[in-house]
Amino acid sequence: MELVNITHEVEVAVKESGVLEGLCLVNAMHITASVFINDDEPGLHQDYKRWLEGLAPFDASPKRYLHNRTGEDNADAHLKRQVMGREVVVAITKGKLDFGPWEQIFYGEFDGRRAKRVLIKIIGD
Amino acid sequence: MELVNITHEVEVAVKESGVLEGLCLVNAMHITASVFINDDEPGLHQDYKRWLEGLAPFDASPKRYLHNRTGEDNADAHLKRQVMGREVVVAITKGKLDFGPWEQIFYGEFDGRRAKRVLIKIIGD
Amino acid sequence: MELVNITHEVEVAVKESGVLEGLCLVNAMHITASVFINDDEPGLHQDYKRWLEGLAPFDASPKRYLHNRTGEDNADAHLKRQVMGREVVVAITKGKLDFGPWEQIFYGEFDGRRAKRVLIKIIGD
Repeated sequence: MELVNITHEVEVAVKESGVLEGLCLVNAMHITASVFINDDEPGLHQDYKRWLEGLAPFDASPKRYLHNRTGEDNADAHLKRQVMGREVVVAITKGKLDFGPWEQIFYGEFDGRRAKRVLIKIIGD
Repeated sequence: MELVNITHEVEVAVKESGVLEGLCLVNAMHITASVFINDDEPGLHQDYKRWLEGLAPFDASPKRYLHNRTGEDNADAHLKRQVMGREVVVAITKGKLDFGPWEQIFYGEFDGRRAKRVLIKIIGD
Repeated sequence: MELVNITHEVEVAVKESGVLEGLCLVNAMHITASVFINDDEPGLHQDYKRWLEGLAPFDASPKRYLHNRTGEDNADAHLKRQVMGREVVVAITKGKLDFGPWEQIFYGEFDGRRAKRVLIKIIGD
């Protein structure tokens, strides 16, 4: 499980778009991953990992998770992703992400070290 | 509890809108239902049902859930819906839903077999 | 933990924007708070509080939550907020929030009685 701060990548995309007032959608393209907004604090990230492991423990066996009858072992990752969410929508104001003081955007992968796949879509004027 | 794949309905709405670049909001209009994106795999859907039942068990009695003092018996469904989410926002690129390889849109009803009520709103150019 | 109905504030912002067809983003600017849509029923709100306390109990000690090594005692609030979500996106149709029959917008603060900070962003024509 890995949480990566992608705020800078999103800021660059917003700047390049030239949009001054609008919305920015950021979503994971993998269904075992999340994009979410919270604090960039390593202790908290450990807390998320432990907590998600408690809510939806990894278990490769198809006894606990029927999804794992397909040969996959990542059913737990599909569940964890629902808790953390697929996407965020952020306001763009005066050409910048309109954030509260501690808001940072993270990509969370719950199924091992896959390549990150994020979509950023910006609309507005 | 029932999970229905509504991807095709959304694709039709996007096509009919004529929008090439934009955003598509899809949300449940019932507050005991969810719209979410994940994999169309029946085992996984069973896993979601079991897991949600563990996190927020059905219990008609007002002892566990105060909401059921109102004569309702669906407090658990209001809780399950928060885990799975109310809505998704999907990018539209070149006139199509801009999806990762396994992304499909589902409507999940957690309070028996009610009529499905979905809102699809498309904006862009 | 406090849940406040902010639907009216959002309706006023939509009216003042003059937008007839579009999207309205409403998000919490605090990372220990949520904006979500559900029913305005006090029993249900008590149920949410109890349930979230069960899923992510308050515990100021850094033994349960590493985040609390920073001197904070609100790690649980960062977890609760992920269950309830950061934001909602609501369709605007004919100048009004396009809602199902019981949908109301709430601000939920999970870390004591902080000042509420909400962002409302409206786009469309």
